[in-house]
Order: sequence, then structure tokens, then C-alpha cells
Amino acid sequence: MSVVVTGAAGFLGNRLAQNLAKRGAQVVLCDQIEPPVVPAGGRALVGPLEETLGAAIASDTRAVVHLAAVVSSGAERDFDLGYRVNVDGLRGTLEACRARCAQPPKFVFASSLAVFGATDAADDATPTTPLNSYGAQKAIGELLVNDYSRKGFVDGRSVRLPTISIRPGAPNAAASGFASSILREPLAGQRAVCPMDLDTDLWLASPRSALRSLEHALDVDGAAFGDYRCVNAPGVTVSVEEMLAALARHGGDRGLVDFVPDPAVAAIVGTWPARFDTSKAAAMGFPDACSIDAMVRSHIEDELN
Amino acid sequence: MSVVVTGAAGFLGNRLAQNLAKRGAQVVLCDQIEPPVVPAGGRALVGPLEETLGAAIASDTRAVVHLAAVVSSGAERDFDLGYRVNVDGLRGTLEACRARCAQPPKFVFASSLAVFGATDAADDATPTTPLNSYGAQKAIGELLVNDYSRKGFVDGRSVRLPTISIRPGAPNAAASGFASSILREPLAGQRAVCPMDLDTDLWLASPRSALRSLEHALDVDGAAFGDYRCVNAPGVTVSVEEMLAALARHGGDRGLVDFVPDPAVAAIVGTWPARFDTSKAAAMGFPDACSIDAMVRSHIEDELN
Ligand SMILES: NC(=O)c1ccc[n+]([C@@H]2O[C@H](COP(=O)([O-])OP(=O)(O)OC[C@H]3O[C@@H](n4cnc5c(N)ncnc54)[C@H](O)[C@@H]3O)[C@@H](O)[C@H]2O)c1
Ligand SMILES: NC(=O)c1ccc[n+]([C@@H]2O[C@H](COP(=O)([O-])OP(=O)(O)OC[C@H]3O[C@@H](n4cnc5c(N)ncnc54)[C@H](O)[C@@H]3O)[C@@H](O)[C@H]2O)c1
Repeated sequence: MSVVVTGAAGFLGNRLAQNLAKRGAQVVLCDQIEPPVVPAGGRALVGPLEETLGAAIASDTRAVVHLAAVVSSGAERDFDLGYRVNVDGLRGTLEACRARCAQPPKFVFASSLAVFGATDAADDATPTTPLNSYGAQKAIGELLVNDYSRKGFVDGRSVRLPTISIRPGAPNAAASGFASSILREPLAGQRAVCPMDLDTDLWLASPRSALRSLEHALDVDGAAFGDYRCVNAPGVTVSVEEMLAALARHGGDRGLVDFVPDPAVAAIVGTWPARFDTSKAAAMGFPDACSIDAMVRSHIEDELN
Repeated sequence: MSVVVTGAAGFLGNRLAQNLAKRGAQVVLCDQIEPPVVPAGGRALVGPLEETLGAAIASDTRAVVHLAAVVSSGAERDFDLGYRVNVDGLRGTLEACRARCAQPPKFVFASSLAVFGATDAADDATPTTPLNSYGAQKAIGELLVNDYSRKGFVDGRSVRLPTISIRPGAPNAAASGFASSILREPLAGQRAVCPMDLDTDLWLASPRSALRSLEHALDVDGAAFGDYRCVNAPGVTVSVEEMLAALARHGGDRGLVDFVPDPAVAAIVGTWPARFDTSKAAAMGFPDACSIDAMVRSHIEDELN
């Protein structure tokens, strides 16, 4: 199985490429930066998406996992870049599949809870009325993936991922970055800044859980999506207070977290729902997300040992 | 007030341009074909949208009504043309406003009930899961108009119009064309073909009602839209049987209608909801749509006398 992963130097992309290689896939890793790891049997193509797609997607490409993106704060700051990468980049990838693949490849698109706006709770029938450009671009992406699937150009699967915590390493331009740093930094004995209140609820998934969702989206029968090729991935609702309590339970010092309200973060993250009904994902066999304690534990296991 | 109307040679666009001119607006009519009427004080720019926008939209443009489109069956038949006109054409128009206008112009976008799929009834909180390319392109358009509004580039207003009946003149490439022809042709003593069953329900508005909705969308305070710049316009639910009964009441011969099922039409029109809750439109002061009898009457008054 030959699988193309875009954004394969990124946090999820590089781990996914390694997992897929372990499962025997020949992985083509596309990213504008050099992937930190190129797994055995894999091939890296480094450059802007539009320049590598021609070499990446071929007649025998069986699957594409499209992760290349400008994330939330980045897309809010640079409107043109966000549309160019998140909309035009996706469209270019879908077009490459349509033009080159002998059979419609499976096409997993990493969407996001950011497609929702101004609602406290969401299910798979909640309208996508995003209040930030990143969410608008992801919602447009879902419509494209569904329409290209309906036409038989790809066998598409959009998966709306929760905010991921704990994201290891340096923060990217995601407005939700604090959802990782307020745990990650204190676990490493460092101070962190929390821009939101203690009683802010978040919709979270661990890296392991998000990767399981992307892999399951690749494995599942496309027909299981029903009429519309999109699903809310599993996650858990956790407040900032509950996160810091879990931090303390695992030996972290919650006193290392300073609360400094940030209106720019609140304007993005504050519009995302924190409570989800994910019964469609459950019915499709997506594995449950793990608890906040398991999230902290897996970070310690995967990153700190 | 200088107002740009795109698609101004089209059915709604040309009538709207005339109405706006009567209200004192200086109208710029953009279309790839020559508008049948250029109202007094108006100016026609003929050519593909991307070639006329530069001359049409200027620093003092106060409003844009974007109607240029490839309609439902056309967009289903020619996938690339649909995306080029319905998505890229809209984006180009929004970008021209962003680049050129001194103040964010009012921007009315004609969306459609086709954004919905696989639901019998819809309200303003029904998710847009379209099952045809035209609907996907319109749903993408709504997301763009909202995001450009949120950013302050335009003062956007997306209006989801019902199927329009009775559309006078020659049919265009709309899959819902029969909703006009099964009344229009018999009223003119001619035969018509109905591709759907007698008990098919449709969501309809007369041309007058659709024009009132577009004009009200231009007049209303943008803040009335609330968080999201989109509204389901008023319409009425009418079955094919009720349409033919109204035809007979107004002297038409329903025997002139032949029933010939068309799966291509059913695949598009059959996925559109026929029952709407339009309480958002009502609260915003959009005028009610008229009854099927008034639709037939206004066609006779406006077109046959
Ligand atoms: N991490 C989360 O919390 C989260 C939540 C929901 C959805 N997602 C989505 O999952 C995907 C992966 O997220 P991540 O956290 O790994 O992001 P990331 O920022 O770590 O990785 C994105 C990668 O895309 C690459 N990229 C961006 N523009 C490119 C271009 N024009 N050409 C080639 N490569 C380009 C970047 O170099 C980067 O390596 C993204 O689509 C993101 O929107 C992430
Ligand atoms: N009539 C309906 O039942 C209905 C229902 C819902 C929504 N709408 C929407 O309302 C709008 C107007 O509908 P209509 O019935 O008047 O359509 P129409 O087909 O009569 O008019 C569309 C006009 O757009 C022009 N056009 C298309 N591509 C162009 C391009 N690339 N450059 C310049 N001009 C271009 C065409 O020449 C045409 O004159 C459309 O956006 C349509 O999608 C119509």
C-alpha cells in the first residue's frame, strides 16, 4: 500500500508516517520542511505542496492523508496564507488525485472542532458556522472532500479532531497551544502561561488518540460515513482546573502556571464547543479517547522517558 | 448609491438592476452576455467576471449583489466550470471589494436551498451537507462571505433563495426548471414535461418574492444577522399536485403536462428539503412569500399581459 502523507514533517504527520510504515505501507512524506524521521521504505519530498504533488501522487497511489495546514492563530493572522494553504492546497491535492490516480484513493482530511462556532455543544448535525478563518477553511475543506467523493474522484473521509493535548516539543501557531503547554512545561519543571480561566472547558484528545482516529479513518469502509463524508472524532471534555488537578496528581507543580488573559486567544478558542456527541464515530468503530489522566501518563511515557 | 450587480443579464439580475435603478441607485451591470435592459443611469460591463471586476468595483462602490453563477444541472455536468464560476468567481469578487473599496461594501450573495441535503425539513440551524456540486459551491460561498465579513472586508449577507416559480422565458440549466415550465408552458397553451411525481413537495418563491428578499438583504442592518451572515429566505411549500390545481384555477389546462421521470433531476431536486422554518428571516423583516395562486397570478400580470 502506497500512502501519501502531506504535512509529514508536522507533529501528527511525522508520527502517522512512522505508524503507517510499521504497518507495512510505503509512505511518501510531503512537507515544506525536512521530516524529522523518514521511516524505512519511506520517501521524503521537501517543498511547497504545489511543487511536490506531481511527484508524490501517482497512478498507483492508494491513499492520501492530508495534514499540511496553517493552524488557527496562523490563519487568523495571515488571511491570504490561510486560504492559500488550507483551501487551495487541499484543492490542489484533490485535483492531483483526480488527475493521476487509477482508482479513487482513500483521502483522509484532518478537519477540526474549529468548524463550529457560537455553540456550547456539538454533534454531527451541528451546522458549521465558524467564527475564525481556520474554521472556515476547514469547513470549506469538508465540503470539497465530500463533493470530490460524491463524484468518485476520491474516497474521502473528513475527521474533525479535538484540540490535541499534550502536544510535545515547541508550540506551533495554534491558538489552543496553551492546552498543551500548561501541562507540558510544568511536567518539565518550567513555567507556563494560561490565557483562559480555570473554569474554561476544552474538547481534547491525546496525540495517541488523534493518531488512532486518523488511522481508523483510513481503515474504515467509506460507506460507513453514510450520506456525508465527515465525522466528529472522539475526545473528552476537560476544564483547565481538571487539567491542573491531573498535573498535580502526576507530580507536576500547578504553581508554575501563570494566568494572563489573552483576548486574541479567547476570540478563537472561546467560540469552539467543548461538549460533543460522538455517537457517529462510536458507531463507525472509532476508538474512544482516553481520560485526562491517561493523556498526562502517555505524555510522560512517550516523551519524558 | 453605486451598486454592482453581477449576473445582471440573468433572470433575477436584470430585474433587480431595474428595481435598484428605480430606487435611485447608479447600477453597474456585469455579465458575460449583454443585459437585455440597461436601466437609466446604469452602465453595462460585458465579459467574464474576472475581466470586468477591475472596472466595476471601485473605491466608492457601496454595495455588490453577486448573482453570476452556473446553476444546478450546469454545475453537476461541468464540475470544473461550476467551481471556477461559483467559488473562484465569488472569491475574486470578494477580493476586488477588499482591495478596492474605501469602506466595506454591502455584499449580497444569492445562495440556495441546494446547500441542504438529505433532510426533509430545514431551518437556519440545519447543517449544510449538500449532495450536489452546485449546493457545495453555494455552501462554500456562504463560508467565504461570512469570513470576509468577520474580517471587515465586506458587509456580507447570504440569502438562501427557494426554487423560483414561475421563471419566465427560456429555461436555464437549473434542475428545478420544471417547477416553472409545468405552469408557464400550459398557461401559454403549450405542452410541458414534469420529471417528478404529483406528490413531490417543493420549496418555492415567486420572482417578485425572490427580488424582495434580495432587496431586503441589501437594506437590512448587517448586525441583524447575528453571529453568522446567512439566512433562509421566505418561501412556500407546494406539491406538484397543488401547482397543477392552481394552474387549472387560473384557466390553464393541466392535461398539457406529461409525466416523464428523470433520474438526473430526481438525484438533485430530490435531495432538497421542501419544508422550512424561516423565523430568522421573519424576525429580520423579510417579507413573506406569496401563495401558489398569487405566484400564478403575478406571472400572468407580469409576463402575459
Ligand atoms: N494538533 C491539533 O490540535 C489539531 C487539532 C485539529 C486538527 N488538526 C489538524 O491536523 C493536521 C496536522 O496538525 P499538526 O498539529 O501536526 O500541525 P503541524 O503544524 O505540526 O504540521 C503541519 C505541517 O504542514 C506543513 N505545511 C504547511 N504548509 C505547507 C505547504 N504549503 N506545503 C507543504 N507543507 C506545508 C508544515 O511545514 C507542517 O510540518 C493539520 O491539518 C491541523 O489543522 C490539528
Ligand atoms: N432562479 C432560481 O430558482 C434560484 C434559486 C436559488 C438561487 N438562485 C441564484 O440566484 C442567482 C441568479 O439566478 P438566475 O435565475 O437569475 O440565474 P441566471 O442563469 O438567469 O443568471 C446568471 C447570470 O450569470 C451570468 N454568468 C455566469 N457565469 C458568468 C461569468 N463567469 N462571468 C460573468 N457572468 C456570468 C450568466 O451569463 C447569467 O446571465 C444565481 O446565483 C443562482 O444560483 C437562483
